[in-house]
Amino acid sequence: KINGDRLWDSLEDMAKIGPGVAGGNNRQTLTDEDAEGRTLFQRWCEEAGCRMGVDSMGNMFATRPGSDPDALPVYVGSHLDTQPTGGKYDGVLGVLAGLELVRTMNDLDIKTKHPIVVTNWTNEEGTRYAPAMLASGVFAGLHTEDWAKDRVDAEGKRFGDELKRIGWEGDEPVGQRKMHAFFELHIEQGPILEAEGKDIGIVTHGQGLSWTQLTITGKDSHTGSTPMPMRRNAGLGMARVLEKVEEIALAHGPDAVGAAGHIEIYPNSRNVIPGKAVFTVDFRSPNLEVLTKMVAQMKEAAQAICDEMELGLEMEQVGGFDPVTFDATCVSALRNAAERLGYSHRDIISGAGHDACWINQVAPTAMVMCPCVDGLSHNEAEAISKDWAKAGADVLLHAVLETAEV
Amino acid sequence: KINGDRLWDSLEDMAKIGPGVAGGNNRQTLTDEDAEGRTLFQRWCEEAGCRMGVDSMGNMFATRPGSDPDALPVYVGSHLDTQPTGGKYDGVLGVLAGLELVRTMNDLDIKTKHPIVVTNWTNEEGTRYAPAMLASGVFAGLHTEDWAKDRVDAEGKRFGDELKRIGWEGDEPVGQRKMHAFFELHIEQGPILEAEGKDIGIVTHGQGLSWTQLTITGKDSHTGSTPMPMRRNAGLGMARVLEKVEEIALAHGPDAVGAAGHIEIYPNSRNVIPGKAVFTVDFRSPNLEVLTKMVAQMKEAAQAICDEMELGLEMEQVGGFDPVTFDATCVSALRNAAERLGYSHRDIISGAGHDACWINQVAPTAMVMCPCVDGLSHNEAEAISKDWAKAGADVLLHAVLETAEV
Ligand SMILES: NC(=O)NCCC(=O)O
Ligand SMILES: NC(=O)NCCC(=O)O
Repeated sequence: KINGDRLWDSLEDMAKIGPGVAGGNNRQTLTDEDAEGRTLFQRWCEEAGCRMGVDSMGNMFATRPGSDPDALPVYVGSHLDTQPTGGKYDGVLGVLAGLELVRTMNDLDIKTKHPIVVTNWTNEEGTRYAPAMLASGVFAGLHTEDWAKDRVDAEGKRFGDELKRIGWEGDEPVGQRKMHAFFELHIEQGPILEAEGKDIGIVTHGQGLSWTQLTITGKDSHTGSTPMPMRRNAGLGMARVLEKVEEIALAHGPDAVGAAGHIEIYPNSRNVIPGKAVFTVDFRSPNLEVLTKMVAQMKEAAQAICDEMELGLEMEQVGGFDPVTFDATCVSALRNAAERLGYSHRDIISGAGHDACWINQVAPTAMVMCPCVDGLSHNEAEAISKDWAKAGADVLLHAVLETAEV
Repeated sequence: KINGDRLWDSLEDMAKIGPGVAGGNNRQTLTDEDAEGRTLFQRWCEEAGCRMGVDSMGNMFATRPGSDPDALPVYVGSHLDTQPTGGKYDGVLGVLAGLELVRTMNDLDIKTKHPIVVTNWTNEEGTRYAPAMLASGVFAGLHTEDWAKDRVDAEGKRFGDELKRIGWEGDEPVGQRKMHAFFELHIEQGPILEAEGKDIGIVTHGQGLSWTQLTITGKDSHTGSTPMPMRRNAGLGMARVLEKVEEIALAHGPDAVGAAGHIEIYPNSRNVIPGKAVFTVDFRSPNLEVLTKMVAQMKEAAQAICDEMELGLEMEQVGGFDPVTFDATCVSALRNAAERLGYSHRDIISGAGHDACWINQVAPTAMVMCPCVDGLSHNEAEAISKDWAKAGADVLLHAVLETAEV
């Protein structure tokens, strides 16, 4: 079993880098804080005897050698970047649990046939640069590296330039590594495990996602002297679309969800009718047909609203993935481990996207989840217990050892 | 009559400072561009033989002496600050027409009994610092200077600090000047004069305004893994309030207006349910009872929406003034001037707030308006013709000469 106190201490130490304003973290991708977190992770890995490789998307790979030089490595990991007002465990737990596996194997002098590689994927969160899971997406061949590096943040800074600036553009080509398997431990970010009192979620599927960025164009004009019938209020058009998003998600319930987290109004002045509204609608469903239908209904509704209000409308898909079915053998390895260790568990569908969803396309992959308090994530108050973290890492350890062949 | 070409050239020269991105201006209050515009205006005034006074709110007063040392001055002016995507005439026309009056009087060697003072009021627009007409409001005793200087912009910069930084905090106490009268020329910012083919609007009243800033508090959480019934979506609550604002304004028909131009969402990340929405609702009406009723209905509706959605709600009035009736004698002076000069004219109610609305509380005040193309203002495409500008300045000149006693 892993050392729960050591894992917890490492989580706490990492959380000191890029502290938030309310007890959580703001360590967004490709910031100075991201660089500092990476440096700490690298030091810890090297202290644990691993060799660090970095690819040209900034993905980090810390290798613990195996006994068979021809055996493909078993990869474990997640991401160290956070939301602007994020928690201390989303992503970080999966990376540091991977490191804890290595430390535990060192302590117990465990040798595996397959090497173990602990991974930190760049820009999982997708806040600064859409889409989410950008660098694992390049690794899995979903995006080209050039396209990914051309993404810009809200200030117009290119991903490629920022990666160089923080000094974490490696020289290894992206996606050339072959994997025997990939395992990711992550907090649930939803309420199910805690509500049912389960220690462990065995992730069999991931729900699909679609991000549509809408740009509604009206006419900026004076809020006082423009008569109501002459107004072309892009903000009001947006409000009507936001209502529709809620309505459409509820109509496809109980599993479908929809919301807009990103909203920009131009010129954003109290006495100017908004001339432009840019916002991103996030729809999800474990069922591809439902997901497709929701997006189509939203687009149709938005077009009707804008036509009626004489507003311009542009829509662009800025992120998306189909529902995922994880590898049966990897899933079994996790379920068997939970069973063997005596942890209560249930199968679960991931509500969030994860690097594992992309890696699943190029390697046998599965995920394990631990509960989080009140299902709350993407919030600085995100919380888990030390026991939950330990249970998740224990299951990860045993599945990895089985797969990497002790 | 004034020199229309010279006035137009000065408008064009001023517009070179703080150019916008689409042919208009971004010369927001207390920016470096504001300072540059002030310096140019000061130079022009001094070249026209005026003495410049600056008060501790940055209001500028360029005096052309009168023949009677005991006569109170006649003030004319408006503001040089602009919206972030503003036009070249909103405010600027009124200041530079005042300067053109002085230049014309110099050319024609006209002496007046009362001194003439050309004024530039600080922060009329209210974009960077709410409320609008901040410095004329302090001058008229509506706000204390300390309160005004403590206003902060979106980046947390204090008004008082920024005024010092740009070097335009004068040493004259605010509001000590006594006025014989105040006249302001402004573009209409609405469609009426152009639609009716009138050269001149004689402003008899100004409509009242109320700005309510709403802060809706939800719970930031994951857009993917938070089930719909657990969501506390502050952005959706805002959308519902925005619908109500439109509904309420339309129900108080044809003169009442309402909209929100300012919207901020937190943390503003594509995959985070908005935990907070801050936005400002702008209602206006020439009828105080209607204005009060609209605000009350909106507050009630917002409270009901937030209660129903289990969202927190705070509401704060961040700007407001009652409907204004301008001074009958000053209004007549303007109407007589238009009549005498043969310009077509009509009485009109100002849809926007103006410095004149505050100065009206401490001195006999009136306003004159010229048309603007398509009624469009607070937009870089704001446009007027040289003839319209000249007509407005001619009427201003003759009303001022009558009032200042040639
Ligand atoms: N796990 C997680 O929060 N990933 C971010 C991508 C998403 O929005 O699902
Ligand atoms: N004239 C003008 O645009 N003033 C700004 C204050 C207002 O919003 O009415």
